[in-house]
Amino acid sequence: MIKVGVVGGTGYTGVELLRLLATHPEVTLQVITSRSEAGYAVSDMFPNLRGHLDLKFQVPQINVLTECDVVFFATPNGTAMGMVAELLAAGVRVIDLAADFRLKDPVEWKRWYEVDHACPEILAEAVYGLPELNRAAIKKARVVANPGCYPTAVSLGLLPLIEQGLVDDQHLIADAKSGVSGAGRGAKVGSLLCEASENFKAYGVSGHRHLPEIRQVLAGVAKHSVGLTFVPHLTPMIRGIEASLYAVIKNKNVDLQALYEQRYASEPFVDVLPAGQLPETRSVKGANMCRMAVQRPQDGDVVVVSSVIDNLVKGAAGQAIQNMNIMFGLAETAGAQIALLP
Amino acid sequence: MIKVGVVGGTGYTGVELLRLLATHPEVTLQVITSRSEAGYAVSDMFPNLRGHLDLKFQVPQINVLTECDVVFFATPNGTAMGMVAELLAAGVRVIDLAADFRLKDPVEWKRWYEVDHACPEILAEAVYGLPELNRAAIKKARVVANPGCYPTAVSLGLLPLIEQGLVDDQHLIADAKSGVSGAGRGAKVGSLLCEASENFKAYGVSGHRHLPEIRQVLAGVAKHSVGLTFVPHLTPMIRGIEASLYAVIKNKNVDLQALYEQRYASEPFVDVLPAGQLPETRSVKGANMCRMAVQRPQDGDVVVVSSVIDNLVKGAAGQAIQNMNIMFGLAETAGAQIALLP
Amino acid sequence: MIKVGVVGGTGYTGVELLRLLATHPEVTLQVITSRSEAGYAVSDMFPNLRGHLDLKFQVPQINVLTECDVVFFATPNGTAMGMVAELLAAGVRVIDLAADFRLKDPVEWKRWYEVDHACPEILAEAVYGLPELNRAAIKKARVVANPGCYPTAVSLGLLPLIEQGLVDDQHLIADAKSGVSGAGRGAKVGSLLCEASENFKAYGVSGHRHLPEIRQVLAGVAKHSVGLTFVPHLTPMIRGIEASLYAVIKNKNVDLQALYEQRYASEPFVDVLPAGQLPETRSVKGANMCRMAVQRPQDGDVVVVSSVIDNLVKGAAGQAIQNMNIMFGLAETAGAQIALLP
Amino acid sequence: MIKVGVVGGTGYTGVELLRLLATHPEVTLQVITSRSEAGYAVSDMFPNLRGHLDLKFQVPQINVLTECDVVFFATPNGTAMGMVAELLAAGVRVIDLAADFRLKDPVEWKRWYEVDHACPEILAEAVYGLPELNRAAIKKARVVANPGCYPTAVSLGLLPLIEQGLVDDQHLIADAKSGVSGAGRGAKVGSLLCEASENFKAYGVSGHRHLPEIRQVLAGVAKHSVGLTFVPHLTPMIRGIEASLYAVIKNKNVDLQALYEQRYASEPFVDVLPAGQLPETRSVKGANMCRMAVQRPQDGDVVVVSSVIDNLVKGAAGQAIQNMNIMFGLAETAGAQIALLP
Repeated sequence: MIKVGVVGGTGYTGVELLRLLATHPEVTLQVITSRSEAGYAVSDMFPNLRGHLDLKFQVPQINVLTECDVVFFATPNGTAMGMVAELLAAGVRVIDLAADFRLKDPVEWKRWYEVDHACPEILAEAVYGLPELNRAAIKKARVVANPGCYPTAVSLGLLPLIEQGLVDDQHLIADAKSGVSGAGRGAKVGSLLCEASENFKAYGVSGHRHLPEIRQVLAGVAKHSVGLTFVPHLTPMIRGIEASLYAVIKNKNVDLQALYEQRYASEPFVDVLPAGQLPETRSVKGANMCRMAVQRPQDGDVVVVSSVIDNLVKGAAGQAIQNMNIMFGLAETAGAQIALLP
Repeated sequence: MIKVGVVGGTGYTGVELLRLLATHPEVTLQVITSRSEAGYAVSDMFPNLRGHLDLKFQVPQINVLTECDVVFFATPNGTAMGMVAELLAAGVRVIDLAADFRLKDPVEWKRWYEVDHACPEILAEAVYGLPELNRAAIKKARVVANPGCYPTAVSLGLLPLIEQGLVDDQHLIADAKSGVSGAGRGAKVGSLLCEASENFKAYGVSGHRHLPEIRQVLAGVAKHSVGLTFVPHLTPMIRGIEASLYAVIKNKNVDLQALYEQRYASEPFVDVLPAGQLPETRSVKGANMCRMAVQRPQDGDVVVVSSVIDNLVKGAAGQAIQNMNIMFGLAETAGAQIALLP
Repeated sequence: MIKVGVVGGTGYTGVELLRLLATHPEVTLQVITSRSEAGYAVSDMFPNLRGHLDLKFQVPQINVLTECDVVFFATPNGTAMGMVAELLAAGVRVIDLAADFRLKDPVEWKRWYEVDHACPEILAEAVYGLPELNRAAIKKARVVANPGCYPTAVSLGLLPLIEQGLVDDQHLIADAKSGVSGAGRGAKVGSLLCEASENFKAYGVSGHRHLPEIRQVLAGVAKHSVGLTFVPHLTPMIRGIEASLYAVIKNKNVDLQALYEQRYASEPFVDVLPAGQLPETRSVKGANMCRMAVQRPQDGDVVVVSSVIDNLVKGAAGQAIQNMNIMFGLAETAGAQIALLP
Repeated sequence: MIKVGVVGGTGYTGVELLRLLATHPEVTLQVITSRSEAGYAVSDMFPNLRGHLDLKFQVPQINVLTECDVVFFATPNGTAMGMVAELLAAGVRVIDLAADFRLKDPVEWKRWYEVDHACPEILAEAVYGLPELNRAAIKKARVVANPGCYPTAVSLGLLPLIEQGLVDDQHLIADAKSGVSGAGRGAKVGSLLCEASENFKAYGVSGHRHLPEIRQVLAGVAKHSVGLTFVPHLTPMIRGIEASLYAVIKNKNVDLQALYEQRYASEPFVDVLPAGQLPETRSVKGANMCRMAVQRPQDGDVVVVSSVIDNLVKGAAGQAIQNMNIMFGLAETAGAQIALLP
C-alpha cells in the first residue's frame, strides 16, 4: 500500500482527491493537513465522506509528511514550493496540483504569479504531469507538476495537430468554458449562485495564467513558439470544461479522424468519439477522462476540435492519481470511477 | 459471480443501475433489453459508460432472461407484472424498480395505477424491499418490490417514531421535494430545463401514487391505519429528495437523538447526523445513503425530521442493488460508491 | 414626482429597488448611498441599469437625504434605526427593507438580532407594511417596516384561516423554500454556486429570525399567541419562495376556495388560483405578486395552502414600492411589472 | 393605438412577445391564435400573464387577422409563408419571427429548410429586420424577416470590422453559446433539465441553419462572400447568448474601441462597454439589448469580440417589437424593459 499525505484538503480539488483516494485499492491515506481546520473531522466539512474517511485535519508538520511515500499539494499557488525541498530530501515524492512547478521559466513564472520562485533548481527537474505526453518522465519523477484544467483540455485536443505540423500554429484559437468549481471554494461574489447561474460570460481575455502554460506545452511539441488566442468563459454549472479549438489546416487531405484515433489508441483516459458524434461535459462528470471529437466543417480549411473534461478530475485530482499510479508502477487506471449521468 | 439481466435500461434508473452494476465486484451483467433501442450500443445512448460496458440493447426474450440469476425491471409501471411468472418458474429472482408489486391490495393498486393487476398471487408473496424494515424477508424473497423514492425518504424518517408509538399518527405531515430526474427521461414539457429550472412548485397535492405506499408501510408498523398528508414538490436540480416530516409528539421527555441513533446504529445506508446538524441532498449524490436529522424546535411538541436521499440511488437503483446483495448473501455494501461533492 | 433616496443600494434588494424605481412613472430617484462604493457609477456595478440610471453611489449624508420625500433603507439590519430620527424630524418618510422596525417588542428584537434597539419610540409608531393587512395605517405612516420575505408568503397564505378562526392555531406548520438571493449578495461559502446548486437542504430549524415576525403577525390577527413550526429551506435557484402551509381545520364544511377568493378579491397583488391549480414561483419572477392555492386533500381535516412570491419583489423591493404608492396616494399598482417566463 | 395580431403564441418567443406587448403603450393586442390551444385562456398556459392579458387563443382565421395593422408570426418555420400573401393583400404588415423570409435565395432556403419556398416573390421584397443595418428599409417594409438569435449576436459583433474591411474575412470564427430556450418549448429529450443542466456541449458543428443567414448578412456588407466557421453550443441556463468572435486583423493600428463606440453611438439597443470590461448575458436578461466588448489580446493580430443578447428578446420578440416601432413611426424604444439582475 502506498502511504499518502495530502496538504491542503479543504478546497474542491482537495475533497475530490480525498473521494478518489478513499476508494483507491492500493493507497493508505495517512495525513491530511489544513491550518485553518486543524482538529476538525474531515467528514464534518465534507459529509459525503462520512463513514468513508475517519481522519481529522492536522497542522502541516514536516516530520509527519516525511513518513509518506507521496504527498499531494492541493494548496493555493506558492505553498508547495516552500515545502518540497524538505520532502524530497526525505525521499518523499511530490505531486503538486497547484501551479508552482508548471512553468519551466522562473521569469515567466514571476510574470504571471507575481512572486519570485522559491526553488528554481527543483523547478528545473519537475516533470509536467500530462501522461499522454510525458509518461516515461513521470514514472521517474520526484516532483510532478499536475497540469492546469484548461491546459489539459486544450493541449490534449491540439496535440495530434501540432505533433504532425498540420496547421498554422501561429493563429490557434482556444475558446474554453468552465464550470464554476474552477474558481475554487473561496467566498467570492463572482462565484455566488446568484451571480454565476443563469449567466454566461467571457473573462480574462487580456491574459489568463493558463495561457503561458498551454503555449509552453504546445511549443515544446512544435519545437518553436506558437501563437494562441485563449479565451476562457464561465458557464453556469459546477463541473466540466469544454474547449472548442480552431486551427487552419495546411493540407485538407489528412484523415483527421484516423489521426486522432491512432494518437490516443492506447490511452486509457482519452476517448476519441466516432466520426459525427460530439462530446458533452456530463459524460465525464466525476471521471478521469478527456473525451473529444475532431471535424472539418463544410469541407473547409478550418479544423474544429471539441474536447471535454471534468475540471476537478482529469483537470486536477484524477490526473494527479493517474500520475501517482504511473510513478509507483500501479495499474494506470487503478481507482478510476465511472461518470455520473444524469 | 451473479448473472444479472436488466429489462428496460433506457431511463434514468436504468442507466444508474448500469453504472453501479458495471463496477460491482460480484456481478456479471449479461443482458440489457429495450424494445425501442434494440441493436444499439448502450454506450451510444449513455456515453459515460463508454469503455465500461460493452453491451447492446436487445429485444426482451424470456429464454435469454431465464439464464440470469436475477433480473431487474427498470420499466414503466405495468410491465414487470406481465413477465415475472415465467422468470420465477425458471428459478430466476426478480427485483422490480417500478410500482407493480409495491401495494399489497390489488384493489388499491388498480385505484392508483388504473389497470387490473396481472398476477395478484405473485403480488401476495412479493416482499417490499426496504431493508431497514424487511431484511430477513428480502433475503428469502423471489420477488422484491423496490420502494418508491419518496416512500424511502419518508418511511425511514418516520419509522423510529411510529415503531415506538410516540406521535399523533393521524396527522403526520410529509413535505417532500424532489429533483427533476424523479419525473423520468420521458420528453415532457414540464421536465424541460426552461420549465423546471429557476422554478419551484408543489404538485399532486390532491393525491400522489406514493401516498398509499407510504401509508401502507407506516400502517404495517403501527398496526393500524395512519393519517398522512403528503405534498411533493419539484425542485430545480437533477438528483435528490429532501423530506421534511412533522408530527406532534405525545411525550416531550423522549431523547429523540438517541432513539434515532440506536434505531439505525447497524444500518450501513442510514446515517443519523450528530445533534444540531442538518442534512443536504448533495451529501448523498450518487451514493446509496439516507441521511437524516431529528429536532424538536423551541422545545415545543412538534418533531421535525429532515431526511435526504439520492432518488436514483437509495431511492431506486442503489437500493435495488442493496436488495440483490441481501438476496444473494453478498456483503450488503458491495458495489457502494461515495457521493460526489460538489 | 416623488423625490426618492435609497440608502444602501449594493445588495440584491437594492438593485431590485433601483430597477423598479427607474421605470416608475411618478418617481425621481435623487440619491443612492453606499459607503463602500461611493464615487462609482451604479451601472458599473449593475450593468443591467446602463442607460437607465445615471447616478453614482455617494456617502450617506443627512442633508442630502432630507431633500427627499421618502427614503428607502436597503441596508443590513441595524443601520436604519440609527438614521431614521433625523429624517423624520425633517419630514421625510421612511421605508425600511431591513428588520429594524418589524418586531414591536424591543426585548424580542434584541433576543433575535442581538443588539439593543436604538429607537424604541419610533419602533412603537412604525407600521408593519403588509398592505393586505394594514393599508389604512400605511397610508398615514411616517415609518414603514417592510415585511420579511418568508413572513410575506406565509402570512398572506394563512391570513384567511386565522382571521376566521377556522383552524387549530397552536400547531400551524410552515414549510418554506427560498432561492439563494434571500441570503444576500455577501460572499459566503454557503451561497456559492458550487455549494448551493444541485443541492437542497433545510436550515434554521431550531430558530429563524422570521419566526417571531410571522408569529407576531398571526397573533395580531388571532388576538392570542399562536403555535407555529417554521422550517426554511434553501432551493437551488436565484429568486422565489414557495411556502407550503399546513393546519388542522375545525370545520370541514367551510368553502375554502370561496373564502380565499373573497378575502383577496380586491387585492391587486394577491392572486388566488382557480380550484385545482397550484402556483409555481416562476409565475411571479420579477413581479409584485403573491399567488396561492388552497386545498384540503382527500377530503381530510388538513388544509394545505401553497403560496409563492418573488422574494426580491413582493418579498422586498416590490412591496416597498407598493407601500410607497399607498403612502403618497399614487395608484397602488404604479410601476408594477409582468413576471418573466420562462 | 396599433392593432396587433399574433399567430402562434404558445412557444417561448410567443409568450415573450405577449409579455412585451401587454405593457407596450401604443399597442392593442387584438387576437392570438393557436390551433392546439384554441378556446383556452392565454393566462392558463402562461400564469405570469394573469391579470395582464385577458384573451383566449383562437383558431387562426384570415378575416380576423386582416383587421390588424400588423401580424407577428411566432410559428414554426414554414407557416408564415403560407399566410402572408392574404395579409399583404388586405394591407396588413407582417413581422415573421421564424425563418421563412430570412434567406434571400429560395434555393439556399430549400437546402437548409428542406421544403420549397411558398412565395419567392414575397421573399424578394421582404426586409431583413436588423435595424442597425436596415433601418430605412424596415420603415417602409410590408414584410420583415426578424433575424435569428445567433445571427443577431454574431452579426452585430462583426459588423464594424466587416464594414471597414479590417480583417481576413475568409477565416472568421464565431463560437456561440445559447441558453436552452433557443431550442423552443417542444418536448425533446435533449432539452430536459436532467439532460441539459450541469452539462455543456457543442452541437451542429457540421452545419447549422443560422450559418447561411450570418454569411448572407456579412457578405451583403462585405460585397463578397465570407468564410465563417460557426460553432453553436448549449449552455445550462434558460436565456442568453454569448458569441465570442475571432478574426485576424490586417492593420494593428486601428483603434477598435473607438470604431465600435462610433459605429453604435446612436443605436438605442447596442451597448459597447468601456475598454477593459466584458459583457455577461444576465445583464440583458429580459431586455432588448446587445452588449459587447472588443479586445486585441496581448497586442497580437487576433481581434476578439464578445457579444451578448437575450435570445428571446433582442434575439426574437424584443427585436420584433423594435421593428414594429420603426415600421409604425413610434419611438424605437417604446415598450422596452430593464433587464432582471440577478
